[in-house]
Amino acid sequence: MLTTPITPCLCETDASGHINNTVAPVWFEARRKEIFRICNPDLDFGDWHVILAAMTLDYLTQVFWKHPAEVRTWVLAVGTKSFTLYEEIWQGERLCTKGASTYVYFDHKVQQSQAVPESIRMALNEHLYTPASTQDV
Amino acid sequence: MLTTPITPCLCETDASGHINNTVAPVWFEARRKEIFRICNPDLDFGDWHVILAAMTLDYLTQVFWKHPAEVRTWVLAVGTKSFTLYEEIWQGERLCTKGASTYVYFDHKVQQSQAVPESIRMALNEHLYTPASTQDV
Amino acid sequence: MLTTPITPCLCETDASGHINNTVAPVWFEARRKEIFRICNPDLDFGDWHVILAAMTLDYLTQVFWKHPAEVRTWVLAVGTKSFTLYEEIWQGERLCTKGASTYVYFDHKVQQSQAVPESIRMALNEHLYTPASTQDV
Amino acid sequence: MLTTPITPCLCETDASGHINNTVAPVWFEARRKEIFRICNPDLDFGDWHVILAAMTLDYLTQVFWKHPAEVRTWVLAVGTKSFTLYEEIWQGERLCTKGASTYVYFDHKVQQSQAVPESIRMALNEHLYTPASTQDV
Repeated sequence: MLTTPITPCLCETDASGHINNTVAPVWFEARRKEIFRICNPDLDFGDWHVILAAMTLDYLTQVFWKHPAEVRTWVLAVGTKSFTLYEEIWQGERLCTKGASTYVYFDHKVQQSQAVPESIRMALNEHLYTPASTQDV
Repeated sequence: MLTTPITPCLCETDASGHINNTVAPVWFEARRKEIFRICNPDLDFGDWHVILAAMTLDYLTQVFWKHPAEVRTWVLAVGTKSFTLYEEIWQGERLCTKGASTYVYFDHKVQQSQAVPESIRMALNEHLYTPASTQDV
Repeated sequence: MLTTPITPCLCETDASGHINNTVAPVWFEARRKEIFRICNPDLDFGDWHVILAAMTLDYLTQVFWKHPAEVRTWVLAVGTKSFTLYEEIWQGERLCTKGASTYVYFDHKVQQSQAVPESIRMALNEHLYTPASTQDV
Repeated sequence: MLTTPITPCLCETDASGHINNTVAPVWFEARRKEIFRICNPDLDFGDWHVILAAMTLDYLTQVFWKHPAEVRTWVLAVGTKSFTLYEEIWQGERLCTKGASTYVYFDHKVQQSQAVPESIRMALNEHLYTPASTQDV
């Protein structure tokens, strides 16, 4: 599990007084840098290997601006040519938002999806979600 | 069907050269103003009636900065206490992104979900998605 | 003068109930596409010629979510190796925000600033701000 | 001086490959939470005391996505009814962006500007910018 502290920003609130729902994809994406680094060791966009194919988000309860937040990031599953992340936003003891995002492993040179290389599969599996990896889910 | 032209912005691109995937929820939300107006005639946040509960997004193909885009918005279904929107991003003849978003109808005064009033149900149903409403889905 | 209608988005509000002040640079940049096209006819980032050097913003009064807005864009001055835009956000008869942004004309191949070519200077000057170009300033 | 580490996000890049210039106001605003807390101890928007009046930004050099960044925040001056912040974005030894933002101290109840209270003036002055407060400016 990768955990990242977040300090919610005023500009991320909306007129409801809480963090706007379009912010969750931004917080999730922002905390994927370690996952991106596994798939793209140099973080080099000239040779980028992952393309987002699908995302689901469940908004369970409000995210408050005043309080610190935390993003938790796991690998849910690694398929042949894709992998799925599972991510949560927490504030204190409250699970606020959860989501799953599926990335296709891609070869830009031949412009098509590609089997996830074994070394990358192993590195991703080190962040695998298991029931034991969180007490709260 | 509500259609809204979009001019993609430079600041919405990312280092891949295309529109970043966190932008789709923003474009979708931005074009829901007519839907919000049905549920909140004065667009007044002191008496706001809809809360986003879930969102799914499918990223089918890249969205290019250079080309104009269009968001198409339908109501997919109206349930007892919630309704689901179906939305698409198009560039020319290409369907780029599609998504579904479920809103709970809510009463802030009593802080709980509430049956969608009949007049609002009828107004939402005027934007109902049917196979005939698009040739391309 | 280039004018662009804007429909303020819910996700652009903040907890004050009004459009957040970080949105003005986004609206301004978004409406510069025609200016960018003058300097980069193909809008091609592999051969991009303008780099933002400085920006000033004056926030005169609140921008409301409910009401349509308009961005007005002028060229304030074209210098030897740079040019300055002047931009305003209006809602109805209210001038809400104004700003100036200076771009350096740049040659990526040699990685240094360059004189603004005469043809581009002439095209930019067609959008020159003059006291007559607005009755309201 | 308040310093805040920043991990640049993929969605903050643009097609140039670097962090988009509309991100600097967001990073700056995000790191003002301690300043906001001085002026609004409960961070309560029902009784908010600061309104942004003006902002200037100087973009000195590119901000790279790959590298960690830091925002440094000072109080530049406290006037009778307003105060000005001075902020910088650093990457390693490079000063990338600097800016000044002026806030008016405001009383929402009477809807007009107000003298900065002495206790707040003193708290702000603890973050005053002096040539000695940075070796690099």
